[in-house]
Amino acid sequence: MTDQKWKTAITKTTPTDIRIKGYDIADIMENLSYAEVVYLLFRGELPNEAEAELMNAMLVCTVDHSASPPSVLAARTVASCGNSLNAAIAGGMLAIGDNHGGAIEQSARLMQQWAARIDEFDGDYDTLATKMADWLAENKRRMPGYGHKLHTADPRTVKLFEIAERRGYSGTHIKLSRALQKVISERRGKTTPININGAVAALISDMGFDWRLGKGFFIISRVPGLMAHAYEEMTREKPMRVLGPPPYEYDGPDDREM
Amino acid sequence: MTDQKWKTAITKTTPTDIRIKGYDIADIMENLSYAEVVYLLFRGELPNEAEAELMNAMLVCTVDHSASPPSVLAARTVASCGNSLNAAIAGGMLAIGDNHGGAIEQSARLMQQWAARIDEFDGDYDTLATKMADWLAENKRRMPGYGHKLHTADPRTVKLFEIAERRGYSGTHIKLSRALQKVISERRGKTTPININGAVAALISDMGFDWRLGKGFFIISRVPGLMAHAYEEMTREKPMRVLGPPPYEYDGPDDREM
Amino acid sequence: MTDQKWKTAITKTTPTDIRIKGYDIADIMENLSYAEVVYLLFRGELPNEAEAELMNAMLVCTVDHSASPPSVLAARTVASCGNSLNAAIAGGMLAIGDNHGGAIEQSARLMQQWAARIDEFDGDYDTLATKMADWLAENKRRMPGYGHKLHTADPRTVKLFEIAERRGYSGTHIKLSRALQKVISERRGKTTPININGAVAALISDMGFDWRLGKGFFIISRVPGLMAHAYEEMTREKPMRVLGPPPYEYDGPDDREM
Amino acid sequence: MTDQKWKTAITKTTPTDIRIKGYDIADIMENLSYAEVVYLLFRGELPNEAEAELMNAMLVCTVDHSASPPSVLAARTVASCGNSLNAAIAGGMLAIGDNHGGAIEQSARLMQQWAARIDEFDGDYDTLATKMADWLAENKRRMPGYGHKLHTADPRTVKLFEIAERRGYSGTHIKLSRALQKVISERRGKTTPININGAVAALISDMGFDWRLGKGFFIISRVPGLMAHAYEEMTREKPMRVLGPPPYEYDGPDDREM
Repeated sequence: MTDQKWKTAITKTTPTDIRIKGYDIADIMENLSYAEVVYLLFRGELPNEAEAELMNAMLVCTVDHSASPPSVLAARTVASCGNSLNAAIAGGMLAIGDNHGGAIEQSARLMQQWAARIDEFDGDYDTLATKMADWLAENKRRMPGYGHKLHTADPRTVKLFEIAERRGYSGTHIKLSRALQKVISERRGKTTPININGAVAALISDMGFDWRLGKGFFIISRVPGLMAHAYEEMTREKPMRVLGPPPYEYDGPDDREM
Repeated sequence: MTDQKWKTAITKTTPTDIRIKGYDIADIMENLSYAEVVYLLFRGELPNEAEAELMNAMLVCTVDHSASPPSVLAARTVASCGNSLNAAIAGGMLAIGDNHGGAIEQSARLMQQWAARIDEFDGDYDTLATKMADWLAENKRRMPGYGHKLHTADPRTVKLFEIAERRGYSGTHIKLSRALQKVISERRGKTTPININGAVAALISDMGFDWRLGKGFFIISRVPGLMAHAYEEMTREKPMRVLGPPPYEYDGPDDREM
Repeated sequence: MTDQKWKTAITKTTPTDIRIKGYDIADIMENLSYAEVVYLLFRGELPNEAEAELMNAMLVCTVDHSASPPSVLAARTVASCGNSLNAAIAGGMLAIGDNHGGAIEQSARLMQQWAARIDEFDGDYDTLATKMADWLAENKRRMPGYGHKLHTADPRTVKLFEIAERRGYSGTHIKLSRALQKVISERRGKTTPININGAVAALISDMGFDWRLGKGFFIISRVPGLMAHAYEEMTREKPMRVLGPPPYEYDGPDDREM
Repeated sequence: MTDQKWKTAITKTTPTDIRIKGYDIADIMENLSYAEVVYLLFRGELPNEAEAELMNAMLVCTVDHSASPPSVLAARTVASCGNSLNAAIAGGMLAIGDNHGGAIEQSARLMQQWAARIDEFDGDYDTLATKMADWLAENKRRMPGYGHKLHTADPRTVKLFEIAERRGYSGTHIKLSRALQKVISERRGKTTPININGAVAALISDMGFDWRLGKGFFIISRVPGLMAHAYEEMTREKPMRVLGPPPYEYDGPDDREM
């Protein structure tokens, strides 16, 4: 029942040292961005420049999406009822499940299974995507990561793929996801965007991450947003609100350029 | 009971746009690091270069501290019992309380109260620190953020203050925390380091953050570490371990240079 | 850092035995109700018949209050987003805070402080209550546990005090809470009921429980309700709903007699 | 995205009334035990006497099992780090997952699938159990709910089945679980007890509950235990302990009779 001895490959600590994946914490503080440290933690090696930029873009792009996501309502509710900041963020995080953020994992899993077969199709992504769409239809499955309730073309996907393109970092999974988008749009008879879940799924797959980490990257990204909402609730609203869907209004800074 | 209409100043979303504190998400993805976005969320404005570097160093320096913190044991325990990644991270986060990470808030609160009085002492930090130490002694309070069970000189504090120094960013709170360290060390009769909680408390105070956000910055920093431990537990260990303090061993990459 | 040896006074387990507070689990299963076991766990001794009945009434009376409480919305939200039953109940429980269920503790604390002074007033509860109301007014504090948004006379309070009366179990705290209700109603110029938080606070105080357990008894009581809502959400609704305040409708069994 | 109107079949509230599954809260408080209310909530009807006694025995039998379960360590850890009682219980609850309490659901699911086939075997439970054991072996599955690390004969199972027997309440699932125990013990070559998870699984199946509620009944049962440990940690121990497996010692009341 009790483990006598076990092993961990993440961090080594001594009275004078902290080393993450072998690197000294002082060197890390001096040289690595938060996004690079996240990459290091889950890939075990440092990212190249393209990977560092893409990982950062991926982590910032879903940092917040205003007060509509269920996780935000849960975090605000916990805060509103008179609980601590860590409990409020934890409450929001509990709501990030198979139906909220979970599409990343489901999409990455399918992408990784199908992209691995590209050689069977001599590098022809359109044929591979058609085959994949057939299989989905046969199995009555909807492809996760496509379509969005609010955004007709998700600006985050557009930018993420643009950076990947510019950096020459569109690998087999991004290519497959684009080809699949065409097939899905044709079959549904309307332009169906790759939503941010689908884009992140393709990107982390090209970076070589285990699909089971998909929701985790979304969590890392969203924690500051949950915290901002919990803090706003604590400092701006009356206690014990029964929160729900809109109406609420944005009254922050006006649109501005950098 | 039901709020008819309420306001949020964080993010504006429309079918084609997402704007955080007024900035377009595409511009943010292109130009800002994760650390800069965190700064923006809680200060409302973009950081200057020094602030961006310090915020990043602050967020990466506590990303993980191996398997000894209670929050890591809690996250691994939830994972080990067969739960999802979000539940495991939430379980770890629930353990970040007044006695684990909480010293940041308590320290920042005291620092902000006392540093505000520097003019009374004509800018003499040593006298202010002595006065503050007297007050703490009279009220039988221990100054949070000083001393460490494991580290004799916390390498993270050293580096954080070094970057602040180099960037010319040592404000009233960092100055007071240093002066206080001398007084505390004298009175305790042994060198008492400013630990990482104390350093972060001084730094966020110099940056102008509400002390109530202290634990929150630690949470943002620690989430990837909790996730790495939960994931390692899920993929490397047998289910339902009764986890506890060491013995465990590090078997990750050897020490290495960047 | 690591505790070498520590002690627990709750349960003893051996390969053949489980004993709670000294009693064999088989005897407990044969002879004690759930409410009696709860009493045993927190008082260390078995309740008498009146205490057993009152503890049971207290635990069942707040088992559910339909879908309006924030904790229910949080639990349903976590369930709706595709998470497990334990995560959903935990999410709801995180919302039970100082402003939701917390009035029990705050009220019990004040009641225990003031009821202890009854001898100073020669057993005159009206004078004690007047003094207490004066003190509250001077300190600009609102007495927690009085008044209700929805119920003009909370049927749970009425029944709880009725059982206490019949059982001859109205001690100093229930007497003080009734006297205080008269004073508060007079000063507010309208009948202000003792709500269920105030009633439970008075009752657990008469039973001799630490006021810090107040929220805990409410949690024990509410867990089946949170679970019923989470389960209903999982089995009856579409995924990822953005839940909020009413409109919702009750469509369960019609009113009926036992 | 926003639900315009939805329905709930659990509780009806009006300004003067609270009715659970149609019954008035005052009648419930007067007449029903906590265990009966739990039954009512999840079956929609009142239990008969046998069901009421069995439900109570089931809920009290797993109320605590000392400090060894991971959920207790998690709850104590959250409490130890300086968090509120509700956060501590929620932390413990998050650890109740597929590998901790989850055997109830997995066992109940299999039991319900196989017991439904008893007519194919003309009521011969031994043959049905043999068939079931063959199927498990072919599919390389271990039957959940059998065997225990600590208890050679779980006293809780013995008592639960004894009450069921006395009450004439051993239905198809309890019969199958007993028959299966004989087969499993023969094949493993040693007496393999039905553990408490297996016993509860058989019992709730005979009572007609959905197997997906299995973990939930365990949660209802265990909440007072988690709360007792969290409260003991808060009131008896120094802050921020790094908790783990034993050594700890029981120092509560001596063994005693009722």
